[in-house]
Amino acid sequence: MRNIALQLMYVGTAYHGWQIQKNAVSVEETLEKCLELVVGHKVKCVGAGRTDAGVHALVYVANFKTDSRIPLDRLPLAVNTRLPDDIVVTRAVEVSPEFNAISSCERKEYTYRIYNSRIRNAFFVDRAWFYPKRLDEAVMAAAAERFVGTHDFAAVKSVGTDVKSTVRTVYYFDVERKGDLIDCRVCANGFLYNMVRAMVGTIIYAAEGKFPPEAVSDILEGKCRTDAGPTAPSGGLYMSRLWYHEPGLTWEEMT
Amino acid sequence: MRNIALQLMYVGTAYHGWQIQKNAVSVEETLEKCLELVVGHKVKCVGAGRTDAGVHALVYVANFKTDSRIPLDRLPLAVNTRLPDDIVVTRAVEVSPEFNAISSCERKEYTYRIYNSRIRNAFFVDRAWFYPKRLDEAVMAAAAERFVGTHDFAAVKSVGTDVKSTVRTVYYFDVERKGDLIDCRVCANGFLYNMVRAMVGTIIYAAEGKFPPEAVSDILEGKCRTDAGPTAPSGGLYMSRLWYHEPGLTWEEMT
Repeated sequence: MRNIALQLMYVGTAYHGWQIQKNAVSVEETLEKCLELVVGHKVKCVGAGRTDAGVHALVYVANFKTDSRIPLDRLPLAVNTRLPDDIVVTRAVEVSPEFNAISSCERKEYTYRIYNSRIRNAFFVDRAWFYPKRLDEAVMAAAAERFVGTHDFAAVKSVGTDVKSTVRTVYYFDVERKGDLIDCRVCANGFLYNMVRAMVGTIIYAAEGKFPPEAVSDILEGKCRTDAGPTAPSGGLYMSRLWYHEPGLTWEEMT
Repeated sequence: MRNIALQLMYVGTAYHGWQIQKNAVSVEETLEKCLELVVGHKVKCVGAGRTDAGVHALVYVANFKTDSRIPLDRLPLAVNTRLPDDIVVTRAVEVSPEFNAISSCERKEYTYRIYNSRIRNAFFVDRAWFYPKRLDEAVMAAAAERFVGTHDFAAVKSVGTDVKSTVRTVYYFDVERKGDLIDCRVCANGFLYNMVRAMVGTIIYAAEGKFPPEAVSDILEGKCRTDAGPTAPSGGLYMSRLWYHEPGLTWEEMT
């Protein structure tokens, strides 16, 4: 059995996230149907993480097992000709039998994009959060810095998910403005449900002056979701980079 | 009567161009309906040019006459709250009674965007021409240079349009690569029907080696459409800048 890892890119607007769901079209279901046509048997993919409805991926990784002899360099094109335009396989790599796109993942980076201008931009609809009030990116960066490190992130986790531990390590959380766009890049060893969107809502609250940037440390300590800021909308969120144990397998963001 | 010029931005994917048509949704019709709700009477807009179905505008200008006393700084927001997300009014300016968005226009710039990579990019679907074969932008630029100047452009005009003269002046036609994107910016005192898309098809033919870049001059002289390259698809085309006689009214592209 070959274990094949696919690098994907997708615009999430039309999908209810990665994972297969009843009565809703998911990226996983769409991909598996196309893979089946290429390899000639039912396929079950393991994805690098659940992404919510409307969330995008500049980089996503999924692996599946197959006996098909299809050459790796032909696989992306063969699948892409069957996929809708908003999902693309950009690379296929043969990995060790133990490789698992979610459990082998060491670190993930998400990018949250804000379009911060008085007037909205038609080209960023569903691709950035339109925020008309001017944001001070220096205040946002100071607040973001407070999330870096190993903490209990219960205060920025949506309810309704069951995880053993809410402790995670955030390696960096950078805020960069380029004209009207503000990109927030956050890397961690794992993310709780809605964690990135709640952290973005929180640093925006700091920029709005609702609390000083230093207060983020107290909010984390309090472990109470309602102390933090709101959950930012899904359309601004992109999975942007993934790191794996597998030797040589770092997936770089495409821009 | 006030004469008001609006600066617009739109994603053209969902529209059959600017101009009102039977049985097809146009940008003009969509805008006029929203303007009517704001100013309280029927509105007829004059647009800076017909754009084809699927063509975008980073910058577009339309003017209309009204007795409404609505302040100019409130007009964009009032219209935008009624417009669909893919059309935005970015500015409103009061202009002289003689101002006419098409006949007062001195120069126009279009940008044609190509996504030139072996694998398509999900985020550029309908927003750039996906061209998987590697293009040499230096050859494209050399071919583009041959279009600059005052020429008869009959060779790059689609049939079925009636114009008095096919002579136009192209001021510049620049080709710039940024990673996998190639942007072709062309500025002229006017464009014939499908002229930009035919010129782009022609410089790509030169890059494909179908004729040397210098041959563009012969193609223009021959005035025969079939000598030039194919018409590039509409999704890569953006109206990007407009210049007017009206003092101080240069519309800069937004990026």
